[in-house]
Amino acid sequence: MKKLFFTILVLVSFSATGQNYIQDSMTIKRISNYVLSNANCYEDLRHLCKQIGHRLTGSSQAAQAVDWGKKTLEDAGCDKVFLQEVMVPHWVRGEEEAYYEVNGKRYGMKITSLGNAVGTGEAGIKTPIVMVNDIHEFNRLPESEVRGKIIFFNYHFDQTNINTFHSYGPCVFYRWAAPSRASAKGAAAVVIRSVSSAYDDEPHTGVLSYDERYPQIPAIAVGNTTADKLVEAVENNKRPKIYMRTTCKMLKDVKSYNVVGEIYGTELPKEIICFGGHLDSWDVGEGAHDDGAGVVQSIDAIRTFKKLGIRPKRTIRCVLWMNEENGARGAKEYMRQAKLKNENHILAIESDAGGATPYGFGLTMPSYKKDKVQSWKKLFYPYNIYNFSRSGGGVDINPLHKEFDTPTMGLIPDGHRYFDMHHSDNDVFENVHRRELCMGTIAMTMMVYLVSQHGL
Amino acid sequence: MKKLFFTILVLVSFSATGQNYIQDSMTIKRISNYVLSNANCYEDLRHLCKQIGHRLTGSSQAAQAVDWGKKTLEDAGCDKVFLQEVMVPHWVRGEEEAYYEVNGKRYGMKITSLGNAVGTGEAGIKTPIVMVNDIHEFNRLPESEVRGKIIFFNYHFDQTNINTFHSYGPCVFYRWAAPSRASAKGAAAVVIRSVSSAYDDEPHTGVLSYDERYPQIPAIAVGNTTADKLVEAVENNKRPKIYMRTTCKMLKDVKSYNVVGEIYGTELPKEIICFGGHLDSWDVGEGAHDDGAGVVQSIDAIRTFKKLGIRPKRTIRCVLWMNEENGARGAKEYMRQAKLKNENHILAIESDAGGATPYGFGLTMPSYKKDKVQSWKKLFYPYNIYNFSRSGGGVDINPLHKEFDTPTMGLIPDGHRYFDMHHSDNDVFENVHRRELCMGTIAMTMMVYLVSQHGL
Repeated sequence: MKKLFFTILVLVSFSATGQNYIQDSMTIKRISNYVLSNANCYEDLRHLCKQIGHRLTGSSQAAQAVDWGKKTLEDAGCDKVFLQEVMVPHWVRGEEEAYYEVNGKRYGMKITSLGNAVGTGEAGIKTPIVMVNDIHEFNRLPESEVRGKIIFFNYHFDQTNINTFHSYGPCVFYRWAAPSRASAKGAAAVVIRSVSSAYDDEPHTGVLSYDERYPQIPAIAVGNTTADKLVEAVENNKRPKIYMRTTCKMLKDVKSYNVVGEIYGTELPKEIICFGGHLDSWDVGEGAHDDGAGVVQSIDAIRTFKKLGIRPKRTIRCVLWMNEENGARGAKEYMRQAKLKNENHILAIESDAGGATPYGFGLTMPSYKKDKVQSWKKLFYPYNIYNFSRSGGGVDINPLHKEFDTPTMGLIPDGHRYFDMHHSDNDVFENVHRRELCMGTIAMTMMVYLVSQHGL
Repeated sequence: MKKLFFTILVLVSFSATGQNYIQDSMTIKRISNYVLSNANCYEDLRHLCKQIGHRLTGSSQAAQAVDWGKKTLEDAGCDKVFLQEVMVPHWVRGEEEAYYEVNGKRYGMKITSLGNAVGTGEAGIKTPIVMVNDIHEFNRLPESEVRGKIIFFNYHFDQTNINTFHSYGPCVFYRWAAPSRASAKGAAAVVIRSVSSAYDDEPHTGVLSYDERYPQIPAIAVGNTTADKLVEAVENNKRPKIYMRTTCKMLKDVKSYNVVGEIYGTELPKEIICFGGHLDSWDVGEGAHDDGAGVVQSIDAIRTFKKLGIRPKRTIRCVLWMNEENGARGAKEYMRQAKLKNENHILAIESDAGGATPYGFGLTMPSYKKDKVQSWKKLFYPYNIYNFSRSGGGVDINPLHKEFDTPTMGLIPDGHRYFDMHHSDNDVFENVHRRELCMGTIAMTMMVYLVSQHGL
């Protein structure tokens, strides 16, 4: 009897799983077909990039992006769209000019102030540069060699990593922390080699963080080929000087918003799957890969559910976060609201690594939940999504994980081109490919669909 | 005693495998580091595209490419470089002009003659067009509606396939066979919607094949947006006409060459692993993805062995085939020579699917050989190469398989962008990314290395 019962149990569960698998696989194929032939993500991205443009937190374009995001989520057919008010930093770039001087001859440099940096003042700064290849070399310099000088951190993006994010991390230290390290020894300003994988002269911006113990000093980035010229001048003992004038500054905080749109779950509406990208971008290029792609993919996930008449059992919520780039205020506010309302997020997914072809999701969650996600691997394989072995999250969803242990995921696209464009004038619509972007939409929609049906 | 012997055997074989794994994994990491930081494939591709340019079989650029390929393989450090003479077709495009006419108004069209097509003659052809959406619709047309007309095959590239090559195949029927199908019913000429995944107006060429039973008629392709305009005119009953004048023609065969470079195996030199791409390209764009990428990756595999001092146990042979695009004469000659010399090819690999990030190899070989290749999967995973489940080969290596059952492989790169550019003016150097190209070089070099050490 026991044996028979067991056999029946196995048969039932097998057939249920089998049935699920077939149904899921058919729904996913419908999602994929719809997205590749009819999705609007690419046209949404064109609008965001070309009609609104770059949209740094606090700018009028960021405000336009909020209006656009709200309307687009409403048009996509959300059951509810709402804004979450949040006070955000308002940094403005102002003017910037620079040259380097060798043997009395001046050579113009294309520069970018690092985000949140202070300016040089109207007169600018001109000093000989002191070059160091990394922070260890800098640490060995006596204060007397640093004081009053412009320090050039010549740290290279490591081309040998297969995963370009592994090269990004160590470089970011120089963008984030080196200005205050230099200031601690009395430096006048900092120049960094851009955090860039491209062999070109495009400077890449990105946020710095001042250590409050030391004076805030100006900090700029130069493109790789300019950095090479500076290196050459230093190594040939030509004692190059740099002149830089930047008028960037931090203004008062302004009011802005996260944009949230959701479809209520039919069976377990209190279990929320949130997913999204960030609406703000740096004030260069068009924020196409970073993170227009994540924004339009997430909106399109909602649209795809509606267009195909898929009713999620759990609530699916698209969030367009504000201020990922230079403060993460939107992320913090989203978490605060979730806490206030005692919301139950069973999963948070972020797409903030560009719009290229995805090949996996990073997972940060207990191993039994990972096992559940990995049991769906076969459903993802036909879409060339196979890697679920890394950890994953994102600046906008990490607060949820920290506060509530919310399981988090990050979409993993091919990263070989990403850091050529990231935070630079090259991050424009033309550099995103329609089918590749759509594959990200498909991956996000698939994952949201599976968790909405089967929980996590 | 038996048990002890068995234990020892297991330990020895385990440790041998373990040792192999560690050594292979270290060698592969050296290969990867070298290629990503120092490889020459990207600069070779720049030279091939910008200094030589497109290089249709029989053209002076194809001859230049042979000289360049020979010299580059010599400089890469081959033990031996040689040419294989082969008579190849010499098709020339000549002039081409066309317009369509609606209500007496003329609209210029950007067109491309299909490769190997005949021209219209100096006077050109002008007739109303007869549009069909596929071959079935065409088959249902009475001869009276076809005779003397220009037939427009409006067959679409299917955007819903994840693997774009699955969409390419059915479209190619229209490029390859539709002209003679139309001729069989007395058509004057054929226009096809380009075999293209892009929503633009770029016409894509490619080879056709005339059925000798019917008169050869001119055949051209138009870009997708022009095709859309023709469809609109037809559907709105505007009875569009097309004028086309093309002077393309086939000249006499000329002498050309495959270029072959090899490093002798230290232990089993008679076991040959051949790998490569094709030197020729269509006479549009620069043949950057198709197949400059395969050429430079294969040359760089040789160079990487030499630079890192890796001595292959078996002979590794880079082959740059001539005339893949419109005759495959080089492929046939290579096979003929292999037969004459009684050569033993244990594997042939082709890279002819573009220079984007690779994610696998297609394998055509007996299953026990597939198992051997798949036992190396873990070595490929860190390089995001995981898919070994498809079949694979290539126009240049298929004759080896057909004649000798040689195991064949095709490198599988991401294909989402490929058919936007393939056989068109958009297939240029600027559309190949350095790191992505290098990943293909790494994948090819890894596979050649593993087979050269462990056989197949």
